[in-house]
Amino acid sequence: MMNWLDAVKWDRDGLLPVIAQEALSGDVLMFAFMNREALQRTVESGEAVYWSRSRQRLWHKGEESGHIQKVHEMRLDCDQDVLLLKITQLGHAPGIACHTGRHSCFFQRYENGAWVAVDPVLKDPEHIYK
Amino acid sequence: MMNWLDAVKWDRDGLLPVIAQEALSGDVLMFAFMNREALQRTVESGEAVYWSRSRQRLWHKGEESGHIQKVHEMRLDCDQDVLLLKITQLGHAPGIACHTGRHSCFFQRYENGAWVAVDPVLKDPEHIYK
Repeated sequence: MMNWLDAVKWDRDGLLPVIAQEALSGDVLMFAFMNREALQRTVESGEAVYWSRSRQRLWHKGEESGHIQKVHEMRLDCDQDVLLLKITQLGHAPGIACHTGRHSCFFQRYENGAWVAVDPVLKDPEHIYK
Repeated sequence: MMNWLDAVKWDRDGLLPVIAQEALSGDVLMFAFMNREALQRTVESGEAVYWSRSRQRLWHKGEESGHIQKVHEMRLDCDQDVLLLKITQLGHAPGIACHTGRHSCFFQRYENGAWVAVDPVLKDPEHIYK
């Protein structure tokens, strides 16, 4: 029987793209990557653990901000190379997933040839990251 | 003023990861890539045009299957390197986004150390791709 971690088609950098969706609202909150260890730790802890490409280390989401993601469900796509997480975004109500202090990272809407920030900052990032 | 296409941070292959979410249900249907021309054509046509990495060509989603994606909204993330599309999945009710004939590509749920296909095939792929 194939190990569930081996069933994943890791990319050339050993990473897996991950979409985090808020379970209750259906809002897509963020996009990040996991490596094998991050995925294993996510399953073990029930909280989202990513691989930070910029810092080149495991990143337990919320470790600094307190904005932990509780994982309810994980779904792999047809090609086994993208993961969808159904999560609850903890630490603030409404949930803050974005480092800019917004609910979702996808706050820039295309409008007539420009990207316009349309969602409010819920908490000043200076107060999120002390 | 920066061109909206130049504001996108294209990856080392000139691509942008794209998440397609069904506008009405909030379901995440698929994940794909766009290059610059695909994004421009998506805006011009109002229908999702991707870059097929396997076929190395533009891929107007639904060109063979009829499962066109009408685009209602496009959102860029905080790092300008991931795009979220709010779409209506046309051609079948309920919408079929996956080449396996399922509603969503994310049909394999993690259950106790295994990935289990939990969503039904809505239409036999042999009848989708004649």
